[in-house]
Amino acid sequence: MLVTGPVLRTFTENIFLAMGCTGGHAKLAADVLIKSDLRGIDSHGVARLTGYVRLWEKKRINAKPDIRIVHETATTATIDGDAGLGLVVAPFAMKVAIEKAEKLGSGWVSVRNSNHFGIAGYHALMAVEKDMIGFAMTNASPLVSPTYSSERLLGTNPMCYAFPAGGYPPVIVDMATSAAANGKLEIAQRSGKQVPEGWVQDKGGNPTTDPHALKSGGSLLPLGSDPEHGSHKGFGLGATVDILSAVLSGANYGPWVPPFVAFLEPPDDPVGLGIGHFLGAMRVDGFRPVGEFKIHMDNWIRRFKSSTPVDPDQKVIIPGEPEAEAEADRKANGIPLVDAVVNDLNGLAEKFGINRL
Amino acid sequence: MLVTGPVLRTFTENIFLAMGCTGGHAKLAADVLIKSDLRGIDSHGVARLTGYVRLWEKKRINAKPDIRIVHETATTATIDGDAGLGLVVAPFAMKVAIEKAEKLGSGWVSVRNSNHFGIAGYHALMAVEKDMIGFAMTNASPLVSPTYSSERLLGTNPMCYAFPAGGYPPVIVDMATSAAANGKLEIAQRSGKQVPEGWVQDKGGNPTTDPHALKSGGSLLPLGSDPEHGSHKGFGLGATVDILSAVLSGANYGPWVPPFVAFLEPPDDPVGLGIGHFLGAMRVDGFRPVGEFKIHMDNWIRRFKSSTPVDPDQKVIIPGEPEAEAEADRKANGIPLVDAVVNDLNGLAEKFGINRL
Repeated sequence: MLVTGPVLRTFTENIFLAMGCTGGHAKLAADVLIKSDLRGIDSHGVARLTGYVRLWEKKRINAKPDIRIVHETATTATIDGDAGLGLVVAPFAMKVAIEKAEKLGSGWVSVRNSNHFGIAGYHALMAVEKDMIGFAMTNASPLVSPTYSSERLLGTNPMCYAFPAGGYPPVIVDMATSAAANGKLEIAQRSGKQVPEGWVQDKGGNPTTDPHALKSGGSLLPLGSDPEHGSHKGFGLGATVDILSAVLSGANYGPWVPPFVAFLEPPDDPVGLGIGHFLGAMRVDGFRPVGEFKIHMDNWIRRFKSSTPVDPDQKVIIPGEPEAEAEADRKANGIPLVDAVVNDLNGLAEKFGINRL
Repeated sequence: MLVTGPVLRTFTENIFLAMGCTGGHAKLAADVLIKSDLRGIDSHGVARLTGYVRLWEKKRINAKPDIRIVHETATTATIDGDAGLGLVVAPFAMKVAIEKAEKLGSGWVSVRNSNHFGIAGYHALMAVEKDMIGFAMTNASPLVSPTYSSERLLGTNPMCYAFPAGGYPPVIVDMATSAAANGKLEIAQRSGKQVPEGWVQDKGGNPTTDPHALKSGGSLLPLGSDPEHGSHKGFGLGATVDILSAVLSGANYGPWVPPFVAFLEPPDDPVGLGIGHFLGAMRVDGFRPVGEFKIHMDNWIRRFKSSTPVDPDQKVIIPGEPEAEAEADRKANGIPLVDAVVNDLNGLAEKFGINRL
């Protein structure tokens, strides 16, 4: 099924309204999800809407949060999301970071008591629109083992760095700190294929190509896959995200992060509140004039795009380029939704008594 | 040869003094190099001293730099290193970042016109000593190809995040954004061994296990090694370091970064000045009380250290732990230097007419 962005946005907004979100929050949360679908990151868009609803039904998401600053300096803050949708809490936090940056050059916000915040790129792009450099990261429920361990202690903990450019789309590095995200395993599961070695290990920590390994106690591997190829670096990056997002804010970290899926209960010995995020903004003109910066960003992008390819048919891809292309295409031609997602969404429509897609 | 830290520090300081550095600069530059040797990172310590001297002889390092702030806001700054030793320029920049953080919560400095800055961890640790979170990164001469390219366009571009802890040593994530650093190739070259697939590619972009591949036009691979295992993420991280360090400051970036080795000339069409760094500091108490943070850092470390190991003889390693252990050992027992390094250092002693080691 092919659906336009505005139609999908209104549908999604109505679901959030039916959950009891304010008009402003419903609009914003829908915008974050639809942006993900527009940018081709289907795993983080409306496909997750049923997940958010289930958490709300379990009272693990608060539809009417009182999001507030609990600690701050002129350029830093800690925000308590009051168990609200991360889709709303994270943009609130990024707005605080941007306001601080507007006044003093940079702003940094650590967030506790939140939930899944959608794509990191949405939040980082808020800064880019103001000619700032945007940073966004979040911890997540544990699926990844540290190097040398068979225990799941870290989420796929994405980090995002976003930079404005001139004539080109912004450079957006938005990446899980694991070798492969869970979504890629799910694709292999559905198609009955094996996955490459280096993505997952089994319960005992042995290499495996079984895409179902996670379900039988296995774990994802950090970026780098094994010690010989630098998996301690992927572990270090995942740890950095966990510490900035949660140890700094007072959220849960490591194995205490509550699961996104509603059928798994959160640990009964929490070390903090909800999940954590970390967001930041730095004004480009805090370092050099924006015009100069953009000229050099364009030069950087042009040089890397024109780099000698190994295979003439596969040029170098600038971080954020495929997503910008998807967004142009899907804004013009609509967003393709697979049947399973359409059925899920129409199930929600019936549950809440709103119009089907 | 086993030499104590203080003896090696005085020797190194005398070399920098003989180059014409001020007393303060010579002491600081020596401290950065010796810290690397103490922490077991032999590739970045006094083994590089001859490299710095050769660049100075070629007039590409200025022993008497006028390091200055060329642009700033309350919490950001750009610093021109005046072609000075990165070993001196980077601590100057970190001091500016820390001073800004002391006043307003955070401080961020991008640096142009610098040279190799030693280990990133030294600079990030300056912030940790003040109960701040430290960030340090630098670009470097191009050895790494972007995903899908056979051209060398990025350095091994290390990034470092450092966090104070309570009873445990600080957590220090200090990592090249390539799958393997050049030092590891050099070890394989000397021992006549092959390297694992995924570290390097040959001139045509084909996988190879030849540790000499770089000398025949090959390149290092980004962290992740190949697209299937997330090399676009390693490329994205290397790009982030390049942009924050150089596009933001006005240094050279990508293939224009001048080589560290004196026998290679810098490109004759520079896009900026020297190489670039990016340094930052955020006060922990800008987010939550330091005592609370450290209690949770210790809990984080304890939990990860006690994680179920795959092999009972290999426990999980906390980032920064091996370096802290090496430092305790080498402070007590001395720093081992291989003959080649001792000969190089004594060659410098003769050149400058100072006492041999």
